Amino acid sequence: MNVEVIAVGTELLLGQIANTNGQFISQRLALMGYNCYFHTVVGDNEERLLSVIENAVKRADILLFTGGLGPTKDDITKEVIAEYLNCKLVYDEPSLQSILDYYKKVNRIPAENNKKQALVIEGSEAFFNDNGMAPGMAKQVDGKTYILLPGPPTEMKPMFQKVEDYFIKNIETDGKIYSRVLKFFGIGESQLEAELADIITNQTNPTVAPLAAEGEVTLRLTAKAESQEEAMSLIDRTESTIKAIVGDYLYGYDQDTLDAKVFSLLKKAQLTIASAESLTGGLFGNTLTAHTGASSVYKGGVICYQNEIKEHILHVPQTVLTNEGAVSAACAEQLARNVRKLFCSQIGISFTGVAGPSELEGKSVGTVYVGISIEGKGEKVIPLQLAGTREQIKMRSAKHGFSELIRLLKFNE
Amino acid sequence: MNVEVIAVGTELLLGQIANTNGQFISQRLALMGYNCYFHTVVGDNEERLLSVIENAVKRADILLFTGGLGPTKDDITKEVIAEYLNCKLVYDEPSLQSILDYYKKVNRIPAENNKKQALVIEGSEAFFNDNGMAPGMAKQVDGKTYILLPGPPTEMKPMFQKVEDYFIKNIETDGKIYSRVLKFFGIGESQLEAELADIITNQTNPTVAPLAAEGEVTLRLTAKAESQEEAMSLIDRTESTIKAIVGDYLYGYDQDTLDAKVFSLLKKAQLTIASAESLTGGLFGNTLTAHTGASSVYKGGVICYQNEIKEHILHVPQTVLTNEGAVSAACAEQLARNVRKLFCSQIGISFTGVAGPSELEGKSVGTVYVGISIEGKGEKVIPLQLAGTREQIKMRSAKHGFSELIRLLKFNE
Repeated sequence: MNVEVIAVGTELLLGQIANTNGQFISQRLALMGYNCYFHTVVGDNEERLLSVIENAVKRADILLFTGGLGPTKDDITKEVIAEYLNCKLVYDEPSLQSILDYYKKVNRIPAENNKKQALVIEGSEAFFNDNGMAPGMAKQVDGKTYILLPGPPTEMKPMFQKVEDYFIKNIETDGKIYSRVLKFFGIGESQLEAELADIITNQTNPTVAPLAAEGEVTLRLTAKAESQEEAMSLIDRTESTIKAIVGDYLYGYDQDTLDAKVFSLLKKAQLTIASAESLTGGLFGNTLTAHTGASSVYKGGVICYQNEIKEHILHVPQTVLTNEGAVSAACAEQLARNVRKLFCSQIGISFTGVAGPSELEGKSVGTVYVGISIEGKGEKVIPLQLAGTREQIKMRSAKHGFSELIRLLKFNE
Repeated sequence: MNVEVIAVGTELLLGQIANTNGQFISQRLALMGYNCYFHTVVGDNEERLLSVIENAVKRADILLFTGGLGPTKDDITKEVIAEYLNCKLVYDEPSLQSILDYYKKVNRIPAENNKKQALVIEGSEAFFNDNGMAPGMAKQVDGKTYILLPGPPTEMKPMFQKVEDYFIKNIETDGKIYSRVLKFFGIGESQLEAELADIITNQTNPTVAPLAAEGEVTLRLTAKAESQEEAMSLIDRTESTIKAIVGDYLYGYDQDTLDAKVFSLLKKAQLTIASAESLTGGLFGNTLTAHTGASSVYKGGVICYQNEIKEHILHVPQTVLTNEGAVSAACAEQLARNVRKLFCSQIGISFTGVAGPSELEGKSVGTVYVGISIEGKGEKVIPLQLAGTREQIKMRSAKHGFSELIRLLKFNE
């Protein structure tokens, strides 16, 4: 079974936005074990969209469209597909009701084009939109499956769970496919592959597929089985074997991220943290405060970009700065401890290093120290030698910080 | 003349990366006045890549490929296109020499597949790669133009200037096309369109096309002329008319960004800045420190996520926090002034507000105050009411801060 992902929207062809929906969907398809051979982007143009559909039915089993379900004249995806399939458009009652309720609430009369959003292709299964007005839909015709999803990622992403459920229920495969993704940090893809070479090469159910992302590695375990129970038991067994070898680097599953994990561990433990950021320049704080309710665990921090700030606000002794330098384990330790005390938090974390492109204090680009201080337990400093651009070094430094926090907080559980 | 942008790489179809090259190239093509009707992504597979080429020559004048020029067996783009065009591959001497020089320098012998990167399609114009080993290339056959560029954005983006030069020299259009992009902040797309309705609707050389990006609006002025001089004079004249109407919101041109502009203005004026970030959580500092040499202007800052930090480290009087709240003009003013003093910088900037999703202190989501304090000149507070997700509100707050800094620094020039 192979899928073509088709994004509809002139804004993509003008470069106003990147096709991040294509990436998201591809990741999820890969996790489910479906092949994706083509992504296509086409504008809001009937003739060209039709030509894309005609091409795609020749080379894919499943056509997955995003975008063009909105209220304006430009939004033509479902109209063109309905025409292609020779089907009518009909109202999806729950979606229509939800639109009417909304306009009642804001005391306005919906125009026809607002109601148009509730139209779906006749005979399709509608996916209610919990984050917008236009429902998604799926329909099978002549052995091909047509999936239509809204374009805004905030609507499409949460809806994708319904697509996965639809696939599991409706798409015939040899047995059903179930996956689990194990997420690793702190181990390279090649090292992980080497350690697990035997399992990756020889195991067939579940299959074990590594995938490297930005500074992280994931393993996708995909099992074919008659029931979910059977699949999960196969996956559990393989996960145990993997954990025995590289369990130290495993931090989460599926949609987990390092920072979300830290946020939930801190919240659970009712611990607070403060940060002292030199080379990361605020990236750690910015990442942690992406989570709703961050203020319950994150007290804040100091961006100590210049040495005088390290000295005068975070009280790093001048001797440390002079003798060992700002990029040193001693400085990282001082920063972590002192920011913890200054902010009256239980944990302090610090980042100091050389983001590049030039060396600093005679230390090479990518030399980084992450310091962690825990009330009553003392300090720990992790020395790193990172590669990449300025942006990548900043980002990987922050990730190492989150990863080390997970390790320490889990140990505390 | 229309272009199809074709990205080659299985990693895109697995969702390991998004096709940001497609976005970048589309933006630049739009600036140059070329149409782009399709983006296609295909994996490292000969048969499927061939089918994509066959499709594209039917519907596009220019086929612009990215990716698949590297040293591994997976990298097949130039091989497949050469085969399709019935051409040989030959060494591009400057690229080969550069590869040989590199291996000599690191004292290693290049393998055949390292040298393979210097191969180009016979008769093509090679684009030397200043940031990697594989050159790009362009070749015209039977009225179609084939452009091949490396996949890594760090190599492709700087090379794109050479593609633009190639287009201007080689692609026949009715006269040559020249563009300038004016970048605006602080004015919505619809307001800008309304103010400039007459120019946008009636003017044909240059044409004036608005484009909304994340919280920003750009105007693309595209002139057709026999010479660059003539085009620039046409564009200058229209720019003057536009500036007379909405010049207050204009902050830069072409590839300018708000934060790069602030960085260069601060550097030029030899001024330093410090930040007090509440709702932005470090985003301002993180953005400013993306620029090499940021430490010459950015002293650092305090991420004052909790009220006790605002009070105890940044000395916001308790009465302000109790009576007016953390989300208030008075608090923003205190934060900006006090962070400036604490960090001994000439400028202090502060961000306090409600990123959402819930209201705070009875203030609605999107209520934001940006404070700016300048040594010897006093404080200014900009009250904002922003819309969007948590992430968008943080980002737009930071952009408003950068925009206001530009205004103040330009006035100081």
